[in-house]
Amino acid sequence: MKGFRDFYPEEKGKISYIFDIWKKIVEKYGYEEIDMPILENIEIYNKSGSEIPEQIYRFKDKKGREVALRPETTPSIARMIKAKPDLKKPIKWFSISQCYRYERLQKGRNREFFQLNVDYLGSKTMQADAEVIVTLINILKEFKLNEKNFYIKISNRKLMEDMFKECMVKNVKEVSRVLDKKDKLSEGELKKELKKLKLSDLQIKDLFKFFEIKRLEEIEVKSEGLEELKELFSILKKYKVSKYVELDLGVMRGFDYYTGTIFEAFDRKGKFRAIAGGGRYDNLAGVPGVGYAMGDIVLGLFVKNKIPELKSKTEILIIPINTLNECLDIGEKLRKEGLNVEVDLLGRNISKNLDYANKKGIEYVLIIGEDELKKKKVKLKNMENGKEELLSIPSLVKKKLF
Amino acid sequence: MKGFRDFYPEEKGKISYIFDIWKKIVEKYGYEEIDMPILENIEIYNKSGSEIPEQIYRFKDKKGREVALRPETTPSIARMIKAKPDLKKPIKWFSISQCYRYERLQKGRNREFFQLNVDYLGSKTMQADAEVIVTLINILKEFKLNEKNFYIKISNRKLMEDMFKECMVKNVKEVSRVLDKKDKLSEGELKKELKKLKLSDLQIKDLFKFFEIKRLEEIEVKSEGLEELKELFSILKKYKVSKYVELDLGVMRGFDYYTGTIFEAFDRKGKFRAIAGGGRYDNLAGVPGVGYAMGDIVLGLFVKNKIPELKSKTEILIIPINTLNECLDIGEKLRKEGLNVEVDLLGRNISKNLDYANKKGIEYVLIIGEDELKKKKVKLKNMENGKEELLSIPSLVKKKLF
Repeated sequence: MKGFRDFYPEEKGKISYIFDIWKKIVEKYGYEEIDMPILENIEIYNKSGSEIPEQIYRFKDKKGREVALRPETTPSIARMIKAKPDLKKPIKWFSISQCYRYERLQKGRNREFFQLNVDYLGSKTMQADAEVIVTLINILKEFKLNEKNFYIKISNRKLMEDMFKECMVKNVKEVSRVLDKKDKLSEGELKKELKKLKLSDLQIKDLFKFFEIKRLEEIEVKSEGLEELKELFSILKKYKVSKYVELDLGVMRGFDYYTGTIFEAFDRKGKFRAIAGGGRYDNLAGVPGVGYAMGDIVLGLFVKNKIPELKSKTEILIIPINTLNECLDIGEKLRKEGLNVEVDLLGRNISKNLDYANKKGIEYVLIIGEDELKKKKVKLKNMENGKEELLSIPSLVKKKLF
Repeated sequence: MKGFRDFYPEEKGKISYIFDIWKKIVEKYGYEEIDMPILENIEIYNKSGSEIPEQIYRFKDKKGREVALRPETTPSIARMIKAKPDLKKPIKWFSISQCYRYERLQKGRNREFFQLNVDYLGSKTMQADAEVIVTLINILKEFKLNEKNFYIKISNRKLMEDMFKECMVKNVKEVSRVLDKKDKLSEGELKKELKKLKLSDLQIKDLFKFFEIKRLEEIEVKSEGLEELKELFSILKKYKVSKYVELDLGVMRGFDYYTGTIFEAFDRKGKFRAIAGGGRYDNLAGVPGVGYAMGDIVLGLFVKNKIPELKSKTEILIIPINTLNECLDIGEKLRKEGLNVEVDLLGRNISKNLDYANKKGIEYVLIIGEDELKKKKVKLKNMENGKEELLSIPSLVKKKLF
């Protein structure tokens, strides 16, 4: 089906490479993996006040209940946390879950995608905001990306709201939505849209000036959000990640549920949509929380050339030359030693088998004929450099080249 | 939602333990992981002739197409193989995928379940059938189960059909379906159902006699299926797994697509439904194939007491006593050394932190106060035996207890 991917071994290998990095980094910071149903009652998305409902895959089940294929994971996480009020705080969770959106297909968008979700719940301190941002930075660094390749834009919802108040903007939601599109629209178009929302020229000028601010010291609005940002940047400095983070008051985030810090990761060249995004949401789960989501599609495009060519997990292909029975036995012995071994069961000749090993990226082949068995030696061939060795089975096992 | 599981960290840990064993064993035999869409056009299930369609989660998407949440993975695999006719043979694939069925809820059944699917495609030789059965046996052995706990029932579809021919049974499909229920019905009920299908007393007697056969030598029907069974059992003997396998001509398998070998794994005590089931399907994917599926629900009940208590993946909790800034730094250093480290960001006292570490199953805590920092020593406490040591950070890193 359009917008849905088949993962053949090669594609599955690549996406597993991404998952493994996600998992490795967030587990380094003590986050625990969870998972949630793919089907949820539609209500939990209606409540979240998100813009997603239009894009939901929804249907009625046999009992007439309206259900949805999860378009995101945060509402499920909020539901799970509310269901177990005695969970020890802090709750540090992550999930790698496939999500679904009925979207128009375009570059960087698909109807299914995998999403890493990382959340720190049970704390209002900026320490938590900093930690989740640090995990995000370290994930991108693990893909061998550096400050020349990516950066994190950071803003604060409270500061935004105080700024809107100062500018006397009342229809904050509508205005935010227009401002969220500011990278896609020309300045003229943007002004036009804002005027439609009945903003005066002065208001628009003030807003534009605000968005140009690049340093905390330039902000004149009094706001708890400003204090939070100062603290957050100071903690991030202690983590030595200042070169990856930037104040950007233009960060809007599509969702309405953020209450403090908001942030998004972008490639420096501006070729792609946001790689990840998140923020603090203190009113969603009954406990204060901060977290982010990173999808695999934009990330996959971004790190395309950073994923190494993946070897086969099969370490050795045994090629029996009229010796299948003995080879089954040798295969079992090597597997007991921890090796991943395929035995050719099709009786193909050597050259076809070598071709197969090559195509699969299997590093070693063992050629075993009757002669070799008599001499109790087998021929081990390294497919990468073509080197061959005659070895006894025990010495082969000991070798543990693999 | 009913029938759908939330996986909190503990449950996720347990199911990951199962996934890891599945993956480890099938990769030992050279199977490669794949994945497929969760939504498929409903047609691919209608074609498969399976009994599943009634239980399918189906709905119309916004364009009016009938789509289904995958109830099983084999039809998707057949579709993927047909889409790439130039795939190198043999195709040795496995997948661990969540599947969905709208079933009445009962023990060992859920509306979603994870399923391991293992397939060897591109060969008609019984060597392939034997290999997939061996992976199944080794998976169950890896859960520390042995021949006293489980066994594999093996039969052959061709032999069944030749036997039906010999007994002059014509409505094979209907009769098979009734016979499939023979473990749930009394002999009387079974006979009654068969009589409804117009089988004579003699036919029923012949069928019953046939099902009682326990040894290949007793089979009098001439059949290619018999020859296949003989070869299969002989190969399984070479793999030294004879004690795990039994001839059982009563194996029916719900699906219609099997063409040769069929098999099912059961617990010896007969407490559970089939743990796994599969067989040879030569007409489904355009290439001959053999494989099986194993769900996580029945297996999970069966191995419940075999899953060890899982430690936290977080190896160390750092407890700062007014030293948070320094502790962030120490945390980063230890993470660079490969350790999984949580730093308490909430400023809790020592006893609350120890309680937290205990509850989470974190093995070590590092208590770091100003005194310790001055002396450049930190206190490492082993939460299992209560032992404490004073260590310098470099020697802590070197220790690699973790």
